[in-house]
Amino acid sequence: MSKPIVRLRPKVDPRPIRHGFPWVYADQLVTDRRTRALDPGALAVLEDAERRPLALVTVNPNSKIIARVLDHDPGADLTPAWLETRLTHALALRGRLFDAPFYRLVHAEADGLPGVVIDRFGDLAVIQPNAAWAAAHLDMLVDALVAVTGVARVVCNGTGRARALEGLPEEMTVLRGSVDAPVEVPMNRATYLADVMGGQKTGLFYDQRPNHAFAAGLVRGGGQMLDVFSHVGGFALAALAGGADRALAVDSSAPALALAAQGAALSGHGTRLDTRKGDAFATMEALATEGARFELVVCDPPAFAPHRGALDAGLRAYERVARLAAPLVAPGGFLVLCSCSHAADLAAFRSACTRGIGRARRMGQILHTGFAGPDHPQLPQLAESGYLKALFWRLDG
Amino acid sequence: MSKPIVRLRPKVDPRPIRHGFPWVYADQLVTDRRTRALDPGALAVLEDAERRPLALVTVNPNSKIIARVLDHDPGADLTPAWLETRLTHALALRGRLFDAPFYRLVHAEADGLPGVVIDRFGDLAVIQPNAAWAAAHLDMLVDALVAVTGVARVVCNGTGRARALEGLPEEMTVLRGSVDAPVEVPMNRATYLADVMGGQKTGLFYDQRPNHAFAAGLVRGGGQMLDVFSHVGGFALAALAGGADRALAVDSSAPALALAAQGAALSGHGTRLDTRKGDAFATMEALATEGARFELVVCDPPAFAPHRGALDAGLRAYERVARLAAPLVAPGGFLVLCSCSHAADLAAFRSACTRGIGRARRMGQILHTGFAGPDHPQLPQLAESGYLKALFWRLDG
Repeated sequence: MSKPIVRLRPKVDPRPIRHGFPWVYADQLVTDRRTRALDPGALAVLEDAERRPLALVTVNPNSKIIARVLDHDPGADLTPAWLETRLTHALALRGRLFDAPFYRLVHAEADGLPGVVIDRFGDLAVIQPNAAWAAAHLDMLVDALVAVTGVARVVCNGTGRARALEGLPEEMTVLRGSVDAPVEVPMNRATYLADVMGGQKTGLFYDQRPNHAFAAGLVRGGGQMLDVFSHVGGFALAALAGGADRALAVDSSAPALALAAQGAALSGHGTRLDTRKGDAFATMEALATEGARFELVVCDPPAFAPHRGALDAGLRAYERVARLAAPLVAPGGFLVLCSCSHAADLAAFRSACTRGIGRARRMGQILHTGFAGPDHPQLPQLAESGYLKALFWRLDG
Repeated sequence: MSKPIVRLRPKVDPRPIRHGFPWVYADQLVTDRRTRALDPGALAVLEDAERRPLALVTVNPNSKIIARVLDHDPGADLTPAWLETRLTHALALRGRLFDAPFYRLVHAEADGLPGVVIDRFGDLAVIQPNAAWAAAHLDMLVDALVAVTGVARVVCNGTGRARALEGLPEEMTVLRGSVDAPVEVPMNRATYLADVMGGQKTGLFYDQRPNHAFAAGLVRGGGQMLDVFSHVGGFALAALAGGADRALAVDSSAPALALAAQGAALSGHGTRLDTRKGDAFATMEALATEGARFELVVCDPPAFAPHRGALDAGLRAYERVARLAAPLVAPGGFLVLCSCSHAADLAAFRSACTRGIGRARRMGQILHTGFAGPDHPQLPQLAESGYLKALFWRLDG
């Protein structure tokens, strides 16, 4: 049975697609009645305006990204074997990179599975099918995932902004096995607890792993550290495992702090972690008033500028974080400022941080600029959108 | 004795200087006869157009960067104690970062010593006084260096483009102790040999240390690797120490390859390193003809775009490197492409690489973007100029 055909509008340059760009925007495609009638996630063959086949795509008439390239071979088909090939290629990379099966297994477009995110926690996988095709073919995808990885448990996390943009409903379901407790995750010589059913995103932020490690290296000789917006203690537990004398984790979520404390105990550092529930800004101001100083301060806030409309307000918020955090850094100590905002690029984020540090009357050097770890690969054609930035500063003496 | 005063021209905004920008360009300064008569490297107090003191600067009437900020306190003075304070602050950072005294100790402006580069190799330091003030006060600087670090040997490397721009002569001198052989440098579990008297720059490229380590991690499970533009074997020796089965180092310099071979032997991997002297482009073409394939290919060429005028030609050269290297990468293998060109920014370099890989009919993911190591800090006000970029690709299966 031949697939429906969708076609680029005249004057739309087909070369980006040929060269690996994975998306077609709604205003680039001929959207006749037949195309508009396609089910979200339907397969189609994309052609250029001269009717030359370009790629196998999935179409979602409800999305601004109306077509996503599944395969640059227009003759390919979405089958269990096709999915297993993609998953095997993704798994081989993670096997090279990591000693234990705890990582992001699939990072969407860059792993050839558009809109699909899969995090692996040992024998459990959390899948985020953030594109219509993946929701439509979820059973086949999960079967392939189990076949390739051997995981016993699969959770489908259908929450978040990306799904809403695709017109997909919110849902949280266990598709294989059962989940009755947070999962223990070994990372950077610490043990973390990931609440895969009730936590943020897939329960743990694997993307910060190399930044956790770099920060931990800064206090390997000891020292006090402060982890603001700590979530389950990403930076704090790594720092304690790396040699910090003491860490203080600040978060507005009591359940996240409870997991941080449990993680510290499991890691053998339970007596060296303090937690403080509260608003991050207010807590930093309070700590400054108390005269608290730390060799290392880390601020890893939620995305203040998740989209372009929020950019100005977001940059002001990042500047404020830097301004409130800098006074808490001991002379010659370190400040780590993170942004997971797509809309704030590296230069804009760095400028906001520089302004904030300057307003706190501190100066410093940038030692290191970190991005998401290598289990979060980027497609070169989309590389500008690298969302996670971590700036490592050393402040003056 | 009060210092001469130099003054910003009317309408030149003094705020960048106040906020930490370290340079005054020649067209921003009032260059009357008195200023033009200053000796290169003379100290002066910089004022804004309203005669408010801004900073202690050094002036070089022969340089486009006519004044460099030494201290944001206009009342500061260049004394042995001042130099020792700066060097002690720089040393404290490296002590935090590294287990052994092998690192860049001073990275110019970012370490508060404008134009001065000091690399440390155990008991030996190589200083590059690339600004007139440092050449003029070299004795005091070397005394402070010895006092703070305790090094027994000091080499002055007065070569390179930065010195020519300052109007300084070429020279290579041993200022303390004696140097009769290449220095052994432990790094990334390998031992390198640095020819501090006759090699490139200060004899070894410390800036690539974290990128060497990341590349080595990609072949920790074994595999063949190719190190093109290998110099003394930076990537090859780290890969062998990390687990690669075999490495081939390609360079046009026989002395550099000899040091690579000696380094491999010292590291205990002498039988697993092959070397091939020749032009990098021609050798890559020959290897492709021979059908050679490697799990990991690294290309770390000299700066093809050292200044803006060379940008277009430089980007074409980077594209060509990528086009010739990609066919040598085994299916699912890794390609590391580096640029140390100031003029080619990350986005331009990434595009050139993407084009080159595409012209070789390969596609891939970017796993990691690395910069210079943390002993090469950046001043945030100059951070755009981060010169070293390393892109880690995984190519398709």
